[in-house]
Parts: sequence; structure tokens; C-alpha cells
Amino acid sequence: MTLNRFSVAPLHASTMHLAAVAGGRATADLVITGARVLSTYSERISADREIWVANGRIAAVMPSGAHRKGPAPKAVYDARGGIIAPGLVDPHIHIESSMVTACAYAEAALLNGTTTIFCDSHEIGNVMDVAGVAAMLEDARLAPLSIFLTVPSTVPATSPELETAGGDLTPEKIGALFDKWPEAMALGEKMDFVPVAMGDPRSHAIIAEALKRNRPVSGHIYGREFVAPYAAAGVTDTHEAIDRDISNNFVDAGVWVFLRGGNPATPWNSIVEAIKPITELGASHKRFCVCTDDRDADDLLSFGLDWVVREAIRCGMKPEQAWSMGSLHGATRFGLGDEIGGLGGGRRADLLLLDDSMKPISTWYGGELVVDDRKITPLLEETLNQRYRYPEAAYNTVHLPTGLKLTPELPTAPVVANAIGIEMPGIVLPHRKVAIEPANDCSTILEKHNLSFVTIIERHGKSDGGIAHGLLQDFGITNGAVGSSVGHDSHNIILAGTNEADMALALKTIEAAKGGIVVVQNGQVKAFVGLPVAGLMSDKRVHEVAAENQALKTAWQNAGCTIPYMGFNLIPLSVIPEIRITDKGLVKVPEMVLAPLYE
Amino acid sequence: MTLNRFSVAPLHASTMHLAAVAGGRATADLVITGARVLSTYSERISADREIWVANGRIAAVMPSGAHRKGPAPKAVYDARGGIIAPGLVDPHIHIESSMVTACAYAEAALLNGTTTIFCDSHEIGNVMDVAGVAAMLEDARLAPLSIFLTVPSTVPATSPELETAGGDLTPEKIGALFDKWPEAMALGEKMDFVPVAMGDPRSHAIIAEALKRNRPVSGHIYGREFVAPYAAAGVTDTHEAIDRDISNNFVDAGVWVFLRGGNPATPWNSIVEAIKPITELGASHKRFCVCTDDRDADDLLSFGLDWVVREAIRCGMKPEQAWSMGSLHGATRFGLGDEIGGLGGGRRADLLLLDDSMKPISTWYGGELVVDDRKITPLLEETLNQRYRYPEAAYNTVHLPTGLKLTPELPTAPVVANAIGIEMPGIVLPHRKVAIEPANDCSTILEKHNLSFVTIIERHGKSDGGIAHGLLQDFGITNGAVGSSVGHDSHNIILAGTNEADMALALKTIEAAKGGIVVVQNGQVKAFVGLPVAGLMSDKRVHEVAAENQALKTAWQNAGCTIPYMGFNLIPLSVIPEIRITDKGLVKVPEMVLAPLYE
Repeated sequence: MTLNRFSVAPLHASTMHLAAVAGGRATADLVITGARVLSTYSERISADREIWVANGRIAAVMPSGAHRKGPAPKAVYDARGGIIAPGLVDPHIHIESSMVTACAYAEAALLNGTTTIFCDSHEIGNVMDVAGVAAMLEDARLAPLSIFLTVPSTVPATSPELETAGGDLTPEKIGALFDKWPEAMALGEKMDFVPVAMGDPRSHAIIAEALKRNRPVSGHIYGREFVAPYAAAGVTDTHEAIDRDISNNFVDAGVWVFLRGGNPATPWNSIVEAIKPITELGASHKRFCVCTDDRDADDLLSFGLDWVVREAIRCGMKPEQAWSMGSLHGATRFGLGDEIGGLGGGRRADLLLLDDSMKPISTWYGGELVVDDRKITPLLEETLNQRYRYPEAAYNTVHLPTGLKLTPELPTAPVVANAIGIEMPGIVLPHRKVAIEPANDCSTILEKHNLSFVTIIERHGKSDGGIAHGLLQDFGITNGAVGSSVGHDSHNIILAGTNEADMALALKTIEAAKGGIVVVQNGQVKAFVGLPVAGLMSDKRVHEVAAENQALKTAWQNAGCTIPYMGFNLIPLSVIPEIRITDKGLVKVPEMVLAPLYE
Repeated sequence: MTLNRFSVAPLHASTMHLAAVAGGRATADLVITGARVLSTYSERISADREIWVANGRIAAVMPSGAHRKGPAPKAVYDARGGIIAPGLVDPHIHIESSMVTACAYAEAALLNGTTTIFCDSHEIGNVMDVAGVAAMLEDARLAPLSIFLTVPSTVPATSPELETAGGDLTPEKIGALFDKWPEAMALGEKMDFVPVAMGDPRSHAIIAEALKRNRPVSGHIYGREFVAPYAAAGVTDTHEAIDRDISNNFVDAGVWVFLRGGNPATPWNSIVEAIKPITELGASHKRFCVCTDDRDADDLLSFGLDWVVREAIRCGMKPEQAWSMGSLHGATRFGLGDEIGGLGGGRRADLLLLDDSMKPISTWYGGELVVDDRKITPLLEETLNQRYRYPEAAYNTVHLPTGLKLTPELPTAPVVANAIGIEMPGIVLPHRKVAIEPANDCSTILEKHNLSFVTIIERHGKSDGGIAHGLLQDFGITNGAVGSSVGHDSHNIILAGTNEADMALALKTIEAAKGGIVVVQNGQVKAFVGLPVAGLMSDKRVHEVAAENQALKTAWQNAGCTIPYMGFNLIPLSVIPEIRITDKGLVKVPEMVLAPLYE
């Protein structure tokens, strides 16, 4: 037996049986008894309750012991001392960022109490177009997790003039995705907020595909001046509220705010500021959710959505409110409040047993115990061992030209280089103009200005040997190279290093594995995470990939890199200021024009 | 020019223009400036704001005066001193109870600040089947009001053995209504809560038609023991929470609670008790709405949804919360939170100007001023003068047999009569067993036991002269008769009186007008409201019908009737205890069996 979203029949097929169980006329499959229960509807915790489960759904929440008055249930679980709460609902994530497939992602999610996610598969969309999105949906359908799609809306992130992507999701393709896949619940984050605000026809045509079908539109936006035009364009959520005031503007503009939490060592932990409209400005929390957005494989295990809920509590929310922001509110935002997010009659029995610190102890997915006392059950183990296998095309997405020169020509006369400054937290990258005198060897130049090479190689086989060279300042790497087949959002190969030999080894390593992240020093591969699926994901279990990623992080730091990998792979993301590099060359943002390496 | 729901283009057709207006790049049609604004999202009132309107939608909410920095708007409305709030959303009403058509209903709604209603047209469904529901939808589409349908789910209310209705809405017909009419947003109140709880196949097949289409199911339920099985059957709202504890049970069972308010002289004002989970038991109000349910024509004007919101405030809610329960929450419950219910970007410009007591002063419907300083505007007047005309079949629904004997045979020996006791508030009607001795004339018997005749005459032309006789005790009428073509839910003719001559005049009056309510005394018609449309509705404007209804109420009281008309017309509703009468005879509830008049 394996488990997936479809293991639970639709409610309409179970209403008669559920009514009979709730009325004491038929046998429950499971009674979880003796617990407190957390109502996300009324935002209260009530003592001494039990949950009656049948057909994978909640038949009733009753006073503890009530089941003894009716037909004996098939199983009873003693939950004394704990709190039963609904499974968490993550309204905005990208599975690919976790370096694992949807089936593998489920393991980490369930361990941390998440039973539903709304995933925007725009990374694989950028690599494989509709075929990638469809493959991930097939993956999702086999996963022991409820995975809904927010259809990638901004592929490519900019334009063919500024970068070469593998995908090009036109309004027509997006409309067809909505029509084919009922799990396509919304349009994914419309990242090009400036074109949206300025009335770009393609951007608005894409938004229209969702609105015409009564599907909501998710957003991604920085800058208070853009809030009003962006909301007027039909966008009704954002996870990019990074300070109190923009968060406050969003909620009053009718935009749901997804408070993003994450490893405080990364720039993703915006909840601490964005929650302040509630805790400081008197706003109702009813249109706020929590979300994770991006997690690498090991942070996925350590900083689940449950952790974000606890952050909300630490920021001043009542546990009942915070849990509701982590479950019912996301369900309501996407129109699934009658199906998930609370312990109501007829809802899926996606249930958690929590300790008093609101940490998940056990998880039931569709009424089946999948995590028991913080360990996965044999049923989940069996399911995870039968993960979806991506089609061969997904294992063949790294197409590189031969005979590449991986480093730029050195100047033969004094020049001013347009270098990319590297600063923590690694989101905005400053444009540094560096005056360079000619020298006999490159190391002299690099060391003098604290520079390293950065090279982007088009890997979709679309251009003829597309490559671009640039310089990073203060990236810090010494005697080596790092490389990745993940380079947002087009996911061309990004290499950075101090010498061509190490960069070539990094490239060769990635190419041989059809994708991955690598650290090379002094001619040796120090760490490697293989990402053969679309060059974005491993096909291993999450703990294996997390361990590989931990080793990579250590090697990464040892190599001297000043920003973490999850910042490094944003270097090509030419929608964030001030200067980035794609396979087409250096891109100035927000001017959206190419710049030469030397002026 | 006339106005209806479709006067505002769908959002997807306006996003580019709205973004341009919000960004100060295009001209607003209207700026309402200088007001406080009520955010139903954050539940706060902010000072000194203005609303920019374009294409009938909200482009932006800005600080007052901000419009002066951009292109001059086409019109500016000075709202200083007032509060701008979103139009009210009534999540559960029956238009037919107001004795007017949908187009006429709109006038009263807009005067009271309601701009959207979710209407369950089960009265006309009981008379005319699908054709009646469809005609009312055509009516609704022409109305200057956003009218959505909750598809009648329980027609007939019981079974053909217990009553003869004009309609029989099978699961197939209900499915077809969902498929044909996009405004069919939910299944209407599933009134047969006992069969639902007990697993009746037809009831569950009807629920399935909604759930299969991802449409929610509205409920109607009394009795705490039914809450769990009913919720397990997929029902996710109720407007029949009549006390604190059942209301509290509902919210934790995942059932939205619609707090019903109404004229305190009627039994409809359940909000005062049902709101107590919030005000006394610490429940969040986020899954509570307010609604009106039923209003006769004059109460419709005096006790609008705005009045119910003010009742919620009187019961202890903050105005911002109460207004949100009257607007955004209903929109959210039915999946329209991105379209109505708040002052967010892109939403319909359904706006109100309120005074400090939260009374509507002016109303904009889709950006058009329809009520200005409590008076309707010429635009609304013009629209209301072009109301929908129902098809001829709707004007021909009273089909009576001839040669009827309107009163029962009197006993010739001592008997025990199964009489219907009449008590305020007129919902539950006690079963009275009255020992009767034979007498020479009926008035002796009636006066001795404080009885009057009650007669139900089948009017759908379905049975051959179907008629049933009964006795009311303590109804109080003297020397006369009252009658109605509205008799829930089958809407056969109900007559009550002290003598056959006055009853015959009442019947003749109703028949001649093809429907209506009448008071006769001493051979004279004292008051009459004609209801020619399906025998349920007038085709006049609401103020005319309200005035007629006022006169009727006076005559009704003068005739001595002890319960009001809106209780009288529930006498045939054989789903409420203890004894009712239909065209098939006396019905005992909840036993659901027929009883003889004399035993």
C-alpha cells in the first residue's frame, strides 16, 4: 500500500458514511482520544476531546470517551497530554529550491507537520517549459502530500534579449495548464511587478488567463510605490512583504500577506518585520498566512512551516492565531477552507499531535499515521521508496557547447570594469566600477582588486555556445571554483573561480552528472551535490540530499565564499538591482540594459 | 442607461487600465475624497483617505488629496465627515419573502447599503420548478444589484406523500442548474436536516451535485445533536443558530455561522443569542457573518442588513468587525473575497458613505451613484422603471378546483380533534387534542374551544381537487377569514376563518388576482396584497408593496389574528414540530405521518 492525495475519496463519495459515523450509527476507522484540540475556526484550544476519523476524513470532534457509547472504532490512539491540530498548509513554496523531487519533499514536510503545499514550479518551467511543469505535477500526484500548483507566471523572468531560458510560458500555455490540471489553483507569483504596474501586455494577458477562470493571482513585489498599481492589476497575495509598512499597505490594499520565515542566517526571514501590522498597528491577522517560499534540503528539515508558526508566536501571536495563519488561512485564501485547514466535519483527516511548544510529534495524512513520535512509519517508508521517476528528457537538460573559454580576455590597456559587488545578505548586488591596469597574469589583477571570475554558460542547447564573462568583487573564493546548474531563473550554468582549470573541472563535474553544485579547490572536487533532474533536483531521499548539502556548505565556506550558495545562485537573476550576469552578459537593473565588462 | 451587475466589466478586462490609474498614468472616473475609510481586511478605520474609481472598480485607496498630483479625475465627490465602507453582502436571503421581484428588491437593498445578495429561490422553485428558478435568475441579471444563487436544495420540503408541490428539484435538475448558471455559487439551505443526518439517498445525492463541482453547501438545522452528522455530510454554513451553545458548536464544527437579525417583533432576530460565542466565549468572529434570511416588504425597508450590523455592534462587536461580518466574510465564504467585500485594488466599486452611527447615507453600485443622501438617484429610478417582466406562465400559477367545500364536516358524535395550537412566536405549533361535543351549528363549537377553520387547497393543478381541513386553536380571528397563496414551502392556498362565506370570498379574491394575501371580515375584503407572480410576488415597486403590506398588517391585527402573517404562512411547513397541515391533511412532525382531524 502506498499513500497519496487520492487515497482519500472526494467528500461527495463519503457524506453518507461520515454522517452515519458522526451520528453513532457506523464504525469509525480511528478515534484519537484524550487530547486538547485546537480550533482554527474559533481560535481556541479545548480540553478533553477526541477526533472520529472515517474514510480518511474527520467525522466528528467529540468529548473524550464519547466513542464508547457507540459502535467500537477499528482503532483508538491515545493522545493524552498533547494537542491535536490540523496539518499545516504552506501557501507558497518552490519544491526545486529544496533540491529534491515532490515525492521526497513530502517526507520533510510531514515530519514538520505540513500536509498541504501550494507549489510554484517555475524553476523546472524555466528549464523544461510545460513538460517540466507537467512532470512535476505527475510527481506531485504520487507524493504522500497534498500538492497544489500555482501556475508559473513569469517564465522567463525577463526577456530573450536579456537571458536564454529553456522555457517560455506564454498566456496560451498558461491557460492550457489551468484547463488540464484541476490542481492548478492560482497563478504563481507574478515576479515582473514593474511591467505589471506599467501595463505590459503579455504580463496582463497572463493575469487574465487566471482571472477569466476565477483563479486568484499570487504576487511578488518590492517597493511601496508599486503596491497600488499591482493590487489594481488583480494580484491578491504577496510573500515579499519585507518590512512593517509595506506589509501594512498590502493588507489594506486587499492583498493577503504571506509572512515568510526561514533560517535567520538567510535573508528569507522577513516575518519578524512583516508581522508588525498585527503586533504593533492593530491590524486583524485574518488575512495573514505564514509560508516558507524557498528552503534548501537541510533547512527544509530544520526550518519547516511549524518553525515559522512558532516564530509568529515568538513575535507575539497567540498559538491558536499563529496556527490558524499556518493552516486555515492559506486554505481559505485558495478556496479550500471546506476541505483542509481545520478540524471540521467532513474535512480531510490531516492531523497533528503537538507538544506544548507546538512542535509536531505525530502526523496523520488522510487519516493514516505517517509520522509517529517524530519517526516515519512503515507505510510512509514504503511510499517514499516508490517515488516518481522523471522522464528521460528531465535527466538530459544540460547541453553544453565544446571548446569554451571560461575566463575573459584580460585588458591590454587600463580599463574600468563593471564588476558585480558581493555583499551579505546577497540579494541586492551593488554595481562596482573597478579601474584595472594591465598585468602579466590574471592572478595579479584578481588579487589586487579582490576579484574572481564569474561565467554563465547557456545550457539549454538553444543558442550556439552562449557564454558570458564577468567579475565578482569580494566573493572571497581562493584557489578554486564553484559552480551550479541552478542559476535563477533561467538556470544556465554559473561558475565562479580564480582560475580556468578549476572552473573547467567544476563545469565537467556538473556536465557529467547532468546537473549539480560543486566546490573545487586546487584541482580537486571538494564537494558535490548531484542534481540530475532538470539540473535542479536530486532523485534521492531528503535526508541523503540534506547530508550532501551540509558537506557542500562546509566546503563552500572553506573555499572562502562570502555569501551562501542560495545567494550565489541568484547572481543571474536579472530582476533584482543593481547588476547581474546572464548568458547574454551583464545586465543593469532596473534599467534592464546590457553592459560591457570593460568600459 | 440602466444598471446591472454586468455594467462593470470583469476584472481581467480592466487590469491594464486600473494599474494605469493607480499608478497616476491615467484618469480616474471618480474620486471620493476626504473621508475616513473602513478596511474590512485589517479591521481598522483610517482618517483622510480617498478612493479612486475607474471602470466601475477601485483603482486605489490613497491619502486625501493625492489625486491632485496626477491627471484630473472626471468627477470628485466630497465625502468629508463620513466613513467610506464596502457595500454589504447578504449571504442568505429569499427574495420571494419580500413579496417583490429581484429588480424591485434591489431598491430596498441599495437604500440600506446592501450591494450583493446570495438568494435561495426555493419558494418559486416549489411553485414552478426549474422554470421558476430560471425566471428569477433572469430577473436577477437585470437587477441593479449583484444577485448570486444558492441553488434550492429541498424542493419539495418533504415528500409527495405529505404535500403536493409545484416543483420537484431532483439531483439531476440541480446539477443542470449549476452547469447552466455561473451565478449558482452554492447549494441552498439543505432544510431536511434529519434525513441528511440519517443518510437519505436523495438528500446526499443533491449534496453531491454541489460538492462534485467544488460548490459549498448551505445548511438549515436545529438541535445540537444534529450538528456533527450534518457537518460531516458536507454542510458548511447555517443561519439557524438560534442560541449561544449551538452557535458555538457550529463554529468549531467548521460551519460558518450566519447571524440572522430581523424585526425584534418576529422570531427572526436570533443574532442576539447566536453572537455570544464571540462576545462571551472567546471565539474569533472571522467565520461569522450577518444575514437577513426573510423580510416582508416593509421590514425589508426598515430592517436591512445595515440594521443587523448595528445590532452586532449593540451586542458588543467593534464597528470594524461588525461591518466585516456584513461584507467581507460573506464574500469570503462564497469565494468572492477578491471581487467584493472590501476596498481592495481591483474590487468592484460597491461603496457606501456612512454616518457615525454606521447608517448608509449614499451608495455607489459598480462606481455609479445610486443612492445620494438617502434618496435614489435618477439613474436608479430609470433602472427600476425597466424591471424584468416574468413570463406569462409565472402569472398563471393558481389553478383551483371548483365546487369546493371549504370547511370540514362537523362531528355528529363526541370526538377528539387533532387541532393545531397557535402560540407566539409562531414557529413551533403545539398539537392540541380537543374533545368536542356535537352541536347544531359550527359557531357554537368554534367559540367554545376558541377554534377556527384552516383549509389548504392544492393550487398547482397537480391533484384532482386536493383539499384538507383542520382546526386552529387560539388563532383569534373573529367573524372573518384570512388567506394566502404563500404557504411554505409548497405554497398551496391557506385559508383560515370562522365561516365558509368569508373563506370563499378570500379564496375568490386570491384566485382572481392569481395570488395574494387577503383579510376578509363580515363579507368584506378589508385588505389585499396582490402577488400575481407565481402567487408569491407583486410586480410593483417595493415602497408600493410595503404600503400595501402595512395596510394588510393593520387589518390582520384588527381581525384578531394572534400571530403575524409571516408565522401564519408557515402553518403548512411540515418540517417544524408538532403538527402542521398540508393539502394532504394534518402532518405530525417529526414523526412525518398523517393524522385524521377527528379521532
